[in-house]
Amino acid sequence: MSLEKLSSNKVYGGELAKYKFKSAALGGLDANFNLFLPTNASESNKAPVLVYLAGLTCTEDNGAQKGGFLGPAAKEGIAILFPDTSPRGAGIEGEDDDWDFGTGAGFYVNATNPKYAKNYNMKTHVTLELPQVLETSGLPLDFKRQSIFGHSMGGHGALTLYLSSETKQYRSASAFAPISNPINAPWGKKAFGGYLLEGVEEAKALYDATELVSRHKGPLHVLVDYGTADNFYKQGQLLPENFLKAARDAGFDEFQVRVREQDGYDHSYYFISTFGEDHVHFHANFLRA
Amino acid sequence: MSLEKLSSNKVYGGELAKYKFKSAALGGLDANFNLFLPTNASESNKAPVLVYLAGLTCTEDNGAQKGGFLGPAAKEGIAILFPDTSPRGAGIEGEDDDWDFGTGAGFYVNATNPKYAKNYNMKTHVTLELPQVLETSGLPLDFKRQSIFGHSMGGHGALTLYLSSETKQYRSASAFAPISNPINAPWGKKAFGGYLLEGVEEAKALYDATELVSRHKGPLHVLVDYGTADNFYKQGQLLPENFLKAARDAGFDEFQVRVREQDGYDHSYYFISTFGEDHVHFHANFLRA
Repeated sequence: MSLEKLSSNKVYGGELAKYKFKSAALGGLDANFNLFLPTNASESNKAPVLVYLAGLTCTEDNGAQKGGFLGPAAKEGIAILFPDTSPRGAGIEGEDDDWDFGTGAGFYVNATNPKYAKNYNMKTHVTLELPQVLETSGLPLDFKRQSIFGHSMGGHGALTLYLSSETKQYRSASAFAPISNPINAPWGKKAFGGYLLEGVEEAKALYDATELVSRHKGPLHVLVDYGTADNFYKQGQLLPENFLKAARDAGFDEFQVRVREQDGYDHSYYFISTFGEDHVHFHANFLRA
Repeated sequence: MSLEKLSSNKVYGGELAKYKFKSAALGGLDANFNLFLPTNASESNKAPVLVYLAGLTCTEDNGAQKGGFLGPAAKEGIAILFPDTSPRGAGIEGEDDDWDFGTGAGFYVNATNPKYAKNYNMKTHVTLELPQVLETSGLPLDFKRQSIFGHSMGGHGALTLYLSSETKQYRSASAFAPISNPINAPWGKKAFGGYLLEGVEEAKALYDATELVSRHKGPLHVLVDYGTADNFYKQGQLLPENFLKAARDAGFDEFQVRVREQDGYDHSYYFISTFGEDHVHFHANFLRA
């Protein structure tokens, strides 16, 4: 699992580096990721890790280039890990036919449908494999202090990986325009119907933030932003109102689960960058504790 | 010259809008640009205008998406105008053959070579046409308060349009990794050799920042950043040291012409975004005066 460094850019005093490695979780395919290391990170001062999961059609680059996260992370001394959004080049029939399924659309699940089960294991890739690969590489990262955030499909990933972790792997989770109740939305039904043998029924247990929060025990640290001019919100793909209601019904108040409606914002990285600094600061409260 | 709005995104409380219009300066071709308007801009409180000129191969989108300028501009109440980097679709033989000449590489000159003179007039497009089109459209912009900045070829554009303006159109100029002495650099020689009848000799009078600063009379407000890990700097395409020497020889001190060498930074938008806030604040000093 040795890492190959593909590029390195100095940014805000730190380094944004792109790496490649052969991913066991993704069936031996090459996987890319970006890592931002703040300037003060060292063996004796390992940086906490904030994981950013991107949305449909995106790669490890979108958040790094357009999110507006790196300046705030540099100030807070936080590393940001940017995984890709799916395996690439698996060669499975049909995986490149649609923009909302297959390549660029891994939905951060572990596939149980045999057709996809060898390659489409983004959950294991993000939660287990990348921390292992990075820890063994000797980079100055402290994976005992992790939080996670994401956009759209990546917001779904951040919320579900946070809420479903029995080991409390992440200290906090946040999301921009997350797919918050995918078992009731077209994108989610399509993805789960493809990747999971039991489809939506199987997803209920592991991969639906609204279902997960309704059953959750113990404290939560969650921040969600979505915009009223977001066409995917209007089309019912995101359903943050369902997530909010489930959280309140389960007894989580606005200090534990904060869902903010942002007037006039859409689904783009212009929206994300506007609130990017806010989200990094939110996570810093928990990562530096 | 009526404007067609192609898209609008809310960002940092303001609006980033993309427009299209038929450009007389560019021979009647469609021209796109982006405009960031801060939230407080209105008919009774027109916003000053900071023009951002992008580099080779770029469009009106790169700076808007990756520069990190919009947050600082929103705080300062400054509008940012992002023109394209060349005419597009002129149909001139060979204009799409190279990435450093023709499409995406207008060099902010007015062509005198008849082959290009109908379309390649980015200087007039930026300095005259866009202000006219925007003023007649009724947008709340104050073109009496303009400054200009840019990257690489766009840094060349910003410095030369600032230094060559007899009407003092711009209050200040700044640049990231500018092509600072193009008559002595491969990119510049190629561009001027193509666009200008007299080539480099013609460029000396109008289009070379080092030549212009050496002859300049009157006060200057210039900021330049470049990185020591910039491969184009290492290859002698940028030559900021020539610009700096000419400025000092002409009597401009570090308060009038500041050139900063940034250790370890390269030519990318990661470099630009790191110092983007700095540059917006620099211009705000003059735009708000």
